[in-house]
Amino acid sequence: MIKIKKILVANRGEIALRVMRSAREMGIKTVAIYSEADRTALHVQYADEAVCIGGPKSSDSYLRGDKILKICQDLHVDAIHPGYGFLSENAGFAQAAQAAGIIFIGPTPEAIELMGSKLAAKAAVAQYNIPMVPGTEEAITDVEAAKEIAQTVGFPILIKASAGGGGKGMRVVLDVASLEEQMQVAVSEATSAFGDGSVFIEKYIASPRHIEIQVLGDVHGNIVHLFERECSIQRRHQKVIEEAPSSILTPELRAQMGQSAVDVAKACHYIGAGTVEFLLDENKNFYFLEMNTRLQVEHPVTEQITGLDLVKEQIKIAEGQPLTFIQENLKIYGHALELRVYAEDPQNNFLPDIGTLSTYKRPQGLGVRVDDGFEQGQDIPIYYDPMIAKLITFGADRPEAISKMIRAIEEYQITGVENTLAFGKFVLQHPAFIAGDFDTKFIEKYYQPEQIQLPADEVSSTIAAVLGAWLYETTKLKTAPPEYQMPVTTSNWKKNRLL
Amino acid sequence: MIKIKKILVANRGEIALRVMRSAREMGIKTVAIYSEADRTALHVQYADEAVCIGGPKSSDSYLRGDKILKICQDLHVDAIHPGYGFLSENAGFAQAAQAAGIIFIGPTPEAIELMGSKLAAKAAVAQYNIPMVPGTEEAITDVEAAKEIAQTVGFPILIKASAGGGGKGMRVVLDVASLEEQMQVAVSEATSAFGDGSVFIEKYIASPRHIEIQVLGDVHGNIVHLFERECSIQRRHQKVIEEAPSSILTPELRAQMGQSAVDVAKACHYIGAGTVEFLLDENKNFYFLEMNTRLQVEHPVTEQITGLDLVKEQIKIAEGQPLTFIQENLKIYGHALELRVYAEDPQNNFLPDIGTLSTYKRPQGLGVRVDDGFEQGQDIPIYYDPMIAKLITFGADRPEAISKMIRAIEEYQITGVENTLAFGKFVLQHPAFIAGDFDTKFIEKYYQPEQIQLPADEVSSTIAAVLGAWLYETTKLKTAPPEYQMPVTTSNWKKNRLL
Repeated sequence: MIKIKKILVANRGEIALRVMRSAREMGIKTVAIYSEADRTALHVQYADEAVCIGGPKSSDSYLRGDKILKICQDLHVDAIHPGYGFLSENAGFAQAAQAAGIIFIGPTPEAIELMGSKLAAKAAVAQYNIPMVPGTEEAITDVEAAKEIAQTVGFPILIKASAGGGGKGMRVVLDVASLEEQMQVAVSEATSAFGDGSVFIEKYIASPRHIEIQVLGDVHGNIVHLFERECSIQRRHQKVIEEAPSSILTPELRAQMGQSAVDVAKACHYIGAGTVEFLLDENKNFYFLEMNTRLQVEHPVTEQITGLDLVKEQIKIAEGQPLTFIQENLKIYGHALELRVYAEDPQNNFLPDIGTLSTYKRPQGLGVRVDDGFEQGQDIPIYYDPMIAKLITFGADRPEAISKMIRAIEEYQITGVENTLAFGKFVLQHPAFIAGDFDTKFIEKYYQPEQIQLPADEVSSTIAAVLGAWLYETTKLKTAPPEYQMPVTTSNWKKNRLL
Repeated sequence: MIKIKKILVANRGEIALRVMRSAREMGIKTVAIYSEADRTALHVQYADEAVCIGGPKSSDSYLRGDKILKICQDLHVDAIHPGYGFLSENAGFAQAAQAAGIIFIGPTPEAIELMGSKLAAKAAVAQYNIPMVPGTEEAITDVEAAKEIAQTVGFPILIKASAGGGGKGMRVVLDVASLEEQMQVAVSEATSAFGDGSVFIEKYIASPRHIEIQVLGDVHGNIVHLFERECSIQRRHQKVIEEAPSSILTPELRAQMGQSAVDVAKACHYIGAGTVEFLLDENKNFYFLEMNTRLQVEHPVTEQITGLDLVKEQIKIAEGQPLTFIQENLKIYGHALELRVYAEDPQNNFLPDIGTLSTYKRPQGLGVRVDDGFEQGQDIPIYYDPMIAKLITFGADRPEAISKMIRAIEEYQITGVENTLAFGKFVLQHPAFIAGDFDTKFIEKYYQPEQIQLPADEVSSTIAAVLGAWLYETTKLKTAPPEYQMPVTTSNWKKNRLL
């Protein structure tokens, strides 16, 4: 067993800060890397040491595995935490770290590589009885083969690029008449996007829910699951609201999906924290989608309902420690929600916004957690993912977690950049969301930008601020203010034009 | 059953804000009252309506029950939440509210009055088998009677004013020789302080731990306990660090003390949230001390280990709802700690400090909760309790809660007023605290002001800030900063002179 003494966090923003907090609680020193655009970022301020690694572009900084390994050697770093995104699922980087004698806090390069290919992953788990969406066993490029499979599984079907991800190179085909054309488009899209034109064909699940299972595996072969996260509320295939547990799973289905996730992890001898993604159809049949071999953005909801710190678990596993619990010890406590707060304009097709957080005040109180990487006065840089924060709430049950989220959204004060708080409130207050009756098409189905109440425009809020300040100054001068006089502050004005 | 629609919070600061957050989550409107000194306070900004009630002094504002009731009637308020302190244990106010047709969120005036008198309380619980510190059954003023009792219970003894509280009118007597003189001093002190010279005499417990049990009772006669809080870390009889569960209680002792607390609550037909305080001696014998008929400052640690929101429970009980759980449903999850962060100088006998919070940045992340009533730029007024915040941490076990508290203290940034963060860190890192081996004399025994590392003095921190800003400006100009260059910000400077 190894004792990790110093971790380099090969990431930025909220996840870098979040990893460092757990490391600090474990008595482990931290090293931050940062691009020139992140010089004053909170993760840089928080680390024990920090190194500027290059220009603002990711390819010049956070993706420079070579530079990162050199820094590790120069600063006597024991281990690298990759966070999510950037190098976190890069098998070559994990391999290079290993070769340099530095611990990569994550699974083996082999497991990353295996699960990085959809078809290889499906082949690997074939020995287990994992439900799969009916379709091709192998990647194909031939239209006739595609027709044959489509007739077996039945229309509608989905054509997906073998090397793809995030919705790229995908085509839904409703009938045999349009198959040939769609197939050609998909193959050519896949070729140009990924340099690999092979696709696979599966039955198209029309109204799926996205349910994923968190797993943990140690080097001693112990693997457990930490229950599910429901991530069906998505915009352009990107999750925006996640929760745990799902409002739809029965204990039996949870146990079945959990076991399948553990089996997938076993199939690749998984070490560390990973997530097995499933689709759940209208009849509650579930199908293996893919495995993400890293910490997920939405991991906090699992932490809140299990009482575990997933980053600490990752670090202990990387040290060679066995898990301190078995499946039977794990239970779900309460309910947790996460809202991703993006610097995006929900009334303008979620266009990313940049600028300065001129006001930035976080909500507080029982059952509220904010994971972020910014503070008031800082800029949201243009170079990276426009996420400002993850707002997490947790309560005794789902209604309480929802009411806390709405309260926390109302309490959150962000000005200077457009953001998705008001959009989040729209979803949280929607009857379909409250009833738990939704699928991945929620936003397509229900969201109409004009339905959300955004803060008043710049001019009127400026007027309110000025007027508020003026009234405040006036009231200050009074020695005996009249009873029942309402205090007027900018914050009170804000309430009148609330989200 | 009543549905409360609007609550007036007859308090200020963190507890007013904390109550309003829960009310808002329940869809209940809130009314703040504020003194002229609190015009811009957060609780005023947060409320749906706010009324200035009078001058800065408590007796002109937060203690003006008459004005509060008038505001309730004028603004159609259903219920008053008194918080803690101020009018929270004033039976006359509870009675007047009742008479005015307004719900007082707390026990009946009778229960408040009964438990407000130590001797009446002891008499009330006599029918139950509640362990008491051996001593007088009734208040006395006579020296000869005192001698007789002292010889029965054995020296050392404690003389306590019947009407007292908070250490006033208390005398420890070591032997019979000094009894007469000490008795006379105590009686005369009690007479001048409380207008009532009667005292009672009990065996003096030399090294006690202060353990209290949270109880909840509904109007239907159901009473449960929510386990204990250990509040032994005290300075001048005031709690500074609290935790739940206690590191010393066995499940058997917990059940016994819990049952005794429930019995005390039964004895006064208790309705609402209350706390039964006990002393625990070196041999783990426990003795009933008193009952506090209100929410305690330290209630958050109980919330964190039970998953319950005590303010919501109070409100539901006031509406006439039955408790939704029985004793057997309640369990302890993990461990929680609370540090009271005061605007006091720990190197100058904890002298209260006032001033402007020129820097005020709260710690964040998994397992950290900050309950406060201030934000950066605001003043700590001189008129009230100098508490800035309650810093609460929780984790899977006691060591994790402690490491989180230390991490959170290090992350907390407060400048402009002296504060007790560094003092808190001293306690948290002390071997006796870590071992759980302490009593109410911890601070007397171990604390030496020169042992804590305070932030550098004003001058050098200003230099650091200026220098940091200058270096930052300089580095910004470089197009290609040298590798491994450490960023210099005020925050990094802070780390070098850390708590």
